[in-house]
Order: sequence, then C-alpha cells, then structure tokens
Amino acid sequence: MVDLDFKKAGGLIPAIAQDYKTGEILMLAYINEESWDKTLKTGYATYWSRSRNQLWVKGETSGHLQIVKEILVDCDDDTVIFKINQIGDVACHTGNRTCFFRNIKFKKVNEKS
Amino acid sequence: MVDLDFKKAGGLIPAIAQDYKTGEILMLAYINEESWDKTLKTGYATYWSRSRNQLWVKGETSGHLQIVKEILVDCDDDTVIFKINQIGDVACHTGNRTCFFRNIKFKKVNEKS
Repeated sequence: MVDLDFKKAGGLIPAIAQDYKTGEILMLAYINEESWDKTLKTGYATYWSRSRNQLWVKGETSGHLQIVKEILVDCDDDTVIFKINQIGDVACHTGNRTCFFRNIKFKKVNEKS
Repeated sequence: MVDLDFKKAGGLIPAIAQDYKTGEILMLAYINEESWDKTLKTGYATYWSRSRNQLWVKGETSGHLQIVKEILVDCDDDTVIFKINQIGDVACHTGNRTCFFRNIKFKKVNEKS
C-alpha cells in the first residue's frame, strides 16, 4: 500500500482525472486524506473543494459522477491519476467535456518529424 | 492570450506533461511565471523545481528534453497541460518512462459495461 505524502504538499495533492478509455485529461482537482480515503472506499472520485473548503464528491449535485477504473500514483507519492468513466460525458462546470478546452500559442521547436 | 492565475495559486501552477501521441501522462511538475514565459518563448517544457528552488529546463542535464507540441489551459486558468515529445522516452528520474508506474487497489463500483 502506498501512503501519499500529504504532509509535504501542505495537506492537498493534485489528482488528475483522465478518461479511462481515450486518455483525454478532463480536469485536475485536489485531494486531502479524507477525500483519498473516501475515493478508495467508494470507487467514486472524491476531491477537496478549495473554494468551498469541504469534501466534494464530484457529480453529487449534477449527477456527473466519476466512476474510478484505475488509480496511479507518481514516484514522489504526491500526485495521483484517477482513470475514470465520466458519467454524462461532462467534467467541466462550464458544460464542456473537459476543463482543458483552450489552447495557447507559443514558439514551436522546429523538429523533423 | 490567457493570463494564468499565479496569484490565486500562490505563485505555482501544476503543469501536466502528456505524451502528445499516445495521451499517456508522464509527469506533473510546477511552473511559475518565469518558467511559463520561458516555455512559451523556447518551446521546451520549463518548470520550477520546488526542491532546488530554481528554474528547471527539464532534461537540460540528462538530455531528456521535452519538446512542447501543444499547450492547453483549464477553465480556471490555474492548471496547464504540456503535450510533449519526450526525448529519450524517459520522463521520470527513476528511469521509468512515466512517473506514474504504480497502481493502487481500491473498491470498484460494479458497473455494467
């Protein structure tokens, strides 16, 4: 069993929600120890809302629950990935499927491909 | 142009490095305003090292540079995705391709699939 390093991270660790079938990243939110325990015990992605300062079962109100299919932990024990089935196919509060619906212009490296 | 919300996040924003071809998540690190500017200007993923407390051009020492192919920003302007070409095919300091090489047991929801 892996113990996440909540102490180093100031009590909150980023959790990336990724579509378990397509690999698309849908959102990033934070977990504390309580939400981590609840996710492991229920199989539903449960975060800590930094704005409301309370436990947040994603989709509890909207119905857009996230059923966890796989959980990955990084080498430093301070980031996790929830591979999920996104109920309703909408993860973002804006109504978009993913929170990452905008892309940014930048200088690209000229690679031979 | 999107202005990232560095103030809300205490100066550091999580950046997820994702393989631009396969969608595999390779690592998560943090960026400050300086590393964000440098990434946009150079096209190489540049982070802020929290342990060394300095700018961190990923792969500058190891040669495992990350060439950025696409940048996505989330709805709250406080998380980014770097879709990258990982030079050397190794993102993790452990020598693994991805930092997320361990998975965790948990109670799964019994879904019809």
